[in-house]
Amino acid sequence: MAILFYSEVDDPEPWRQAFARDLPAIAFRVWPDVGDVDDIAYALVWKPQPGLLKTLPKLKAILSLGAGVDGILADSELPRDVPLIRLVDAGLAQQMSEYALYGALHFHRQMHVYALQQRQVQWRMFEPVPAAHRSVGVMGLGVMGSDFVRKLAPLGFRVLGYSRTPSALPGVVSFHGEAGLRPFLEQTEILVNFLPLTGETRRILNAERLAWLPRGACIINLARGGHLDEAALLAALDSGHLGGALLDVFDREPLPPEHPFWRHPQIFVTPHIAAWAVAEVAVSQVIENIRRVERGEQPLGLVMIERGY
Amino acid sequence: MAILFYSEVDDPEPWRQAFARDLPAIAFRVWPDVGDVDDIAYALVWKPQPGLLKTLPKLKAILSLGAGVDGILADSELPRDVPLIRLVDAGLAQQMSEYALYGALHFHRQMHVYALQQRQVQWRMFEPVPAAHRSVGVMGLGVMGSDFVRKLAPLGFRVLGYSRTPSALPGVVSFHGEAGLRPFLEQTEILVNFLPLTGETRRILNAERLAWLPRGACIINLARGGHLDEAALLAALDSGHLGGALLDVFDREPLPPEHPFWRHPQIFVTPHIAAWAVAEVAVSQVIENIRRVERGEQPLGLVMIERGY
Repeated sequence: MAILFYSEVDDPEPWRQAFARDLPAIAFRVWPDVGDVDDIAYALVWKPQPGLLKTLPKLKAILSLGAGVDGILADSELPRDVPLIRLVDAGLAQQMSEYALYGALHFHRQMHVYALQQRQVQWRMFEPVPAAHRSVGVMGLGVMGSDFVRKLAPLGFRVLGYSRTPSALPGVVSFHGEAGLRPFLEQTEILVNFLPLTGETRRILNAERLAWLPRGACIINLARGGHLDEAALLAALDSGHLGGALLDVFDREPLPPEHPFWRHPQIFVTPHIAAWAVAEVAVSQVIENIRRVERGEQPLGLVMIERGY
Repeated sequence: MAILFYSEVDDPEPWRQAFARDLPAIAFRVWPDVGDVDDIAYALVWKPQPGLLKTLPKLKAILSLGAGVDGILADSELPRDVPLIRLVDAGLAQQMSEYALYGALHFHRQMHVYALQQRQVQWRMFEPVPAAHRSVGVMGLGVMGSDFVRKLAPLGFRVLGYSRTPSALPGVVSFHGEAGLRPFLEQTEILVNFLPLTGETRRILNAERLAWLPRGACIINLARGGHLDEAALLAALDSGHLGGALLDVFDREPLPPEHPFWRHPQIFVTPHIAAWAVAEVAVSQVIENIRRVERGEQPLGLVMIERGY
């Protein structure tokens, strides 16, 4: 029995060592050294090449190296009868919360304006807005979004939440479903997107919805590039409707050098680093899930393929 | 009876309105319209002109518009027999904590590196360090520093604290006094300075002490420019010993246009905005203190002039 590792961004070594230690009966193979495909019972992957997974006829499960599985579901030849398992937290929630908290404070305290002023050698002060008068809107209230809401609480912001189905987190003014999106956005000054990317959420932040945000609102996207209409964001910034954006994810990654986001004064680009599965944490979850599959039990993080997460 | 307001950065209007509402018996005068100096029982000031306060012979108290009083104590002609009162919190602690938290996350998540990479159109990822493996060192554990420590707690950093006298905050590894400074700095990766500026703390961050910080350490100064040897900071950044600095305070403010900090790629300059007394909060504290002085009671925030805060 073997597991095939595929990722263009993750280092296989800590995974190889953990498997050698905890599941020595399973051979650890790193793509492209696939070997005999009939050996491969598990695929541990991040954005696998389309068509790769269907070439593995004996798969018992596909294990995502991330919390999102849109990069796997995008494969039109994905074997849809094989269980697909995503990471649940595994250190990701803490990192996402750090990034989101950073972004919320960046815009709340106008650091995007001060960074521009520094380039222009300009000393100009803006009176801080009390956190209680500042609204932070969180899209997606799953494991990640609700961890962020908890970390945000001690700072005293007005927190709004948006989710597909109704939710009730303490201290959060909640909105849900199609009807809830407009009132949620109309009251959100700093928007943080944690949604999974599905058929329903693709381009949820298009020109119409961005226009619902109040003037000067800022956007933090640490979910997926596919949630945001990039041209609509540029138009909303250039018209002065939006104040700034902190973006970790993009339609094309790495962000192409000629992309206008790189040079836009109101956009802060980070290279998809908001959350990064920490091997030491994620590996124990993956190994536990393999053990559960071997015992015929339900793994943690089993994806409902029709729902998309 | 009258109060004289002096500040080159604060708007007197909210103060004028609050006094008209809450203490209508006291005339509110804004410098330079001093009127008859014999009327002036209170001075409400931020960085007053040296020599101004001694021209007011009937002062019952000097009230600082900030938490720090070094700008008042710097006046060699300060009437030292008049009680000097500083703001205690008054919304300042919340703002300082926001700024410090922003700075800690900025360096923790290498946002200073990503900001530089963006200018160079460079997509390069660095694996995040878990917060539990990152040490944040807080200098000054008074009202401000300890508020920051509380807001920092949910994020799971390793928190070190340094103060003049011993302190014991939960979850903080504490150091104090001259002997504690070196071991504190040697273990601090992200340093946040909340100290009051006194004879003892002036240039506490000089070349020798900066060298005690581990390689790659970063500095957040939101206390006073006088704490830091600016030339030593530049040398430590340029040698590669320090990784970055977020500075809100400077030896000369506004920071002169020719100052090298403006154009240094590893320095983020903000224009003394970390905390800004919110008139609506500060005014009630100032008014309460005037009432206490009138009744012969001890005001909140009475400065021990010999100690400097």
